[in-house]
Amino acid sequence: MARIVMKFGGTSMAGIDRIRRVAQIVKQQADAGHEVAVVVSAMAGDTDRLVNFCREASSLYDPAEYDVVVASGEQVTSGLLAIALQSLGAKARSWLGWQMPIRTVEAHSKARIDSIDGEALTAAMQSGEIAIIPGFQGLSEDGRVTTLGRGGSDTSAVAIAAAVKADRCDIYTDVDGVYTTDPRIVTRARKLNKVTFEEMLELASVGAKVLQTRSVGLAMKEGVRIQVLSSFTDENTNWTADDLPGTMIVGEDEMEIEDMERQLITGIAHDKNEAKITLTRVPDKPGAVATIFAPLADAAINVDMIIQNVGREKGETDVTFTVPNVDLDRAMQVLEEAKGKIGFNRLIPDTNVAKISVVGVGMKSHAGVAATMFKALAERGVNIQAITTSEIKVSVLIEEDYTELALRVLHTAYGLDAEDAA
Amino acid sequence: MARIVMKFGGTSMAGIDRIRRVAQIVKQQADAGHEVAVVVSAMAGDTDRLVNFCREASSLYDPAEYDVVVASGEQVTSGLLAIALQSLGAKARSWLGWQMPIRTVEAHSKARIDSIDGEALTAAMQSGEIAIIPGFQGLSEDGRVTTLGRGGSDTSAVAIAAAVKADRCDIYTDVDGVYTTDPRIVTRARKLNKVTFEEMLELASVGAKVLQTRSVGLAMKEGVRIQVLSSFTDENTNWTADDLPGTMIVGEDEMEIEDMERQLITGIAHDKNEAKITLTRVPDKPGAVATIFAPLADAAINVDMIIQNVGREKGETDVTFTVPNVDLDRAMQVLEEAKGKIGFNRLIPDTNVAKISVVGVGMKSHAGVAATMFKALAERGVNIQAITTSEIKVSVLIEEDYTELALRVLHTAYGLDAEDAA
Repeated sequence: MARIVMKFGGTSMAGIDRIRRVAQIVKQQADAGHEVAVVVSAMAGDTDRLVNFCREASSLYDPAEYDVVVASGEQVTSGLLAIALQSLGAKARSWLGWQMPIRTVEAHSKARIDSIDGEALTAAMQSGEIAIIPGFQGLSEDGRVTTLGRGGSDTSAVAIAAAVKADRCDIYTDVDGVYTTDPRIVTRARKLNKVTFEEMLELASVGAKVLQTRSVGLAMKEGVRIQVLSSFTDENTNWTADDLPGTMIVGEDEMEIEDMERQLITGIAHDKNEAKITLTRVPDKPGAVATIFAPLADAAINVDMIIQNVGREKGETDVTFTVPNVDLDRAMQVLEEAKGKIGFNRLIPDTNVAKISVVGVGMKSHAGVAATMFKALAERGVNIQAITTSEIKVSVLIEEDYTELALRVLHTAYGLDAEDAA
Repeated sequence: MARIVMKFGGTSMAGIDRIRRVAQIVKQQADAGHEVAVVVSAMAGDTDRLVNFCREASSLYDPAEYDVVVASGEQVTSGLLAIALQSLGAKARSWLGWQMPIRTVEAHSKARIDSIDGEALTAAMQSGEIAIIPGFQGLSEDGRVTTLGRGGSDTSAVAIAAAVKADRCDIYTDVDGVYTTDPRIVTRARKLNKVTFEEMLELASVGAKVLQTRSVGLAMKEGVRIQVLSSFTDENTNWTADDLPGTMIVGEDEMEIEDMERQLITGIAHDKNEAKITLTRVPDKPGAVATIFAPLADAAINVDMIIQNVGREKGETDVTFTVPNVDLDRAMQVLEEAKGKIGFNRLIPDTNVAKISVVGVGMKSHAGVAATMFKALAERGVNIQAITTSEIKVSVLIEEDYTELALRVLHTAYGLDAEDAA
C-alpha cells in the first residue's frame, strides 16, 4: 500500500469521455488499497481560449485578473473528475488552490509555490477519500488567485507529493515514458526504465518535453520520485520494479550499479528552437564581448552556446551565439541599437540550426564521449558549428537539415539501439 | 454622487466586444463621480455548457462539485471585465465569492445568501476602485463553493446593494424596462417609469421574466431600489426622476399619489408555461381533495389554480388544476399511481392553456377590476376556464390560442394603450 499523487495533463482531460477514463485509472489505484491524490490540468485548448480572452480584452492585461480568468480551467476539470469518480462509487472531492491552501509568492501569472498545508489533504486521503486538486493555481499572500505559468501543473503535482510525503508522483501524459531519443525519428529508440533527476533536467532542457523542467528541479530538491507514464495504457496496477509501465525518475542513489555502468549515455535529445546570431569583425579587445551580452541580459534574452572565432583581419574577431527562436527578433533589435557601442560590421541571423545533446550520468567517470560524437558525425559529413558541455551532457550545434540523420547515427554509435526493433 | 451596484446579464457579457461595451457603461458612472460595484453573469451559453458537462459526467452529480464547475463561468467574466475597465484607465478589481466572502446557507446548487461582509468592498469603492463581483456564487459554512441556482445573479446584485447600502441597484438586461404588457404582442404597450415591489413580484411570477422573482423579494425585504434598464441604451448618466432610462422598482411609499391613482392596473402578464389536469368523477366526500394534492406536494410539484366542478353524477365531482408544464409528466405519473386511493375515473391533461394576469396596487382600493376583465373577454368570445385572485392581481386561465387577443383586449379595456403608438 502506497501514497500516490497522480497527475493528468490537458489531453487526458479533454472532454467527458476522457475524464471518465481518467476516473477509471484513478479508481484502479484506490481499489488496490493506495491512498490517492490527483492533480489535473484544464481541458486541452481551454487555457488557450481563456488566455486569448484576456489578450483580446487588453494587450496589457493585469496579471492578477488574468490569473482569475485562466485558473477557472482547472477548477472545471477538478469538479468534473470528482463527479466522474463518485459515479464509479469512489469517495472523492475537489480541493481548490485557495481551499488547501497552496500558498505562492512572487508575480501573478508566474507564481512560485511557497508552502502547502498538506494536513487536511493527508487526513482526507487516509480516510479513503480521493483528493482532486486543480494544478497550476495557488493563493497569493494577500488572498488572491495566482497561477504558476504554463505547464505549472507538473510542478503542482510534485509540490503536493512533497507536502503529503507521497511514495511517488505518477505523471500521466500522452507518451508512455522517457525514451533514449525521439521515437518518432529513431525507430530503434528504447523506453528507459529509470533516469536520474539530473539526466531528466538535461533532457528536458534540450527539447525532450515530457516534463516541465521546473517540476523536475523541485522533485530533485524535495526527493520526490516521479514516474512518467501513459494515460492510454490499459492496466497500471500490476508491475514489478524491473518492468515499470513508464519511466521512473529518481535520485542517483536509487540507481543500481548495473544501471549506471550499463550505458555511458542515457539519451539523446534535439532542439530546433534555437537560432544562431553571428557578429562579424568585432574589435578584439578586453571588454568587447561584455558590450554584446550586457544589453541582451538586460532584455532578459537567454544566450546559450557562444563561440569566438579569429577574424580575417588582425585585431578583429567573429562572435557567434545562440538564443531561443522566439527571442531572435528582439535580440537582433537590441544588438542593432547597441551597434555603436559594440562596433561590429555585420549581424547575421540563422534559424537553420539544431542542437543535439547526448546525456548520461555515466559520462562523469568516462572519457571519450565527445570523441565518439565528433567521429560519428564527421563520418556522415555533419559539420559541427558549436559545442557546449556540462558534467553529464555534450551538446553540438548543427545544420537543422541533418537533425534526423545525426540522431540515428549517434543512437547507434552509443549502443542505444533496441535489439528487437525493425 | 451616489453609490450604485450595476448588474449585467449573460447576453451583455457574451464575448469580449460586449464586455468592452459594458466596461464603457460602467466607466461612465464612475466618471460621473459615483461609487460603483458591478455584478456579472457568465457569458450567455457558458453556464449551459458547464451544466451539461456535469450531467454528462453523471446524471446523479454531486451538487457540491457541480458548484465548483459552474461557478467558474462568472469567475471568468469578472476577471475579463476588470481587465477591460483597466484598459479604459479605470481602477478595478474582481472579488470572488469566497474572497468577500458572500456567505451562503442551505443546499449546494440552490444556496441562499446568509450574509455579506460589505466592509472591504465599501472601502474599495470609496477609494475610487470599481469592485467587480461574480454573480450566482458564494461560500458555504464549511468553506466550499456554492451557487444560488439559475438566475441567481440578480439576487447577488440586490444582496450586495444591501450590504454596501447602495442608493440603487441597476439591473442591465436586453429590454429597456418593465412594460405594461409584452411589447412584442401589444404594440401599444408602454414602458413603466415606476412599479412597486409587490407589482413586480406578481408580474414576474406570471411570466414577465425581466427579473428573477427571488431578487425582487429580497429587494423588498431589504429596501433596495432596483432599476431595470437596457445595456444597449447609449447614454445612461443624464436623466431626471420623471424620465428614467429604465423602470424603477420601489416601495409603495415612494410612489407618488398620482402614480397610484392614475392607473388601476399597472400591467398585464401572460404565462404559457402551465398545463391543466382534470380528474373526472372524483368521490365528493370530505378528504377527497387531500388525496389528490398530498402526493403532488410530496413530489414537490407546485399546483397553482384549482377548480372543483359538480360532476354529472350525484356524489361525484370533477377537479381541475394547473401545474408547470415541465412537471406535467411527473404529475400524471404520481396521480396514476395514487388512482386507487383517489378513486377518479379519467385523468385528462391539457397543455393548450395560458394564464393572463392583470396586476396593480391600485386594485386594493377599487372594485370592478375583475368585472371589466370578464366583460372584455366575453365580448370577444374568450372562455374563462379558471380564476384566481390575490390582493393586487386577478388571473384567468384561457385557451392558449386566444393569448394575444386577450392581451390586446385587456390592455385597451384598462386604458393602458400608449397614445402615440400605431
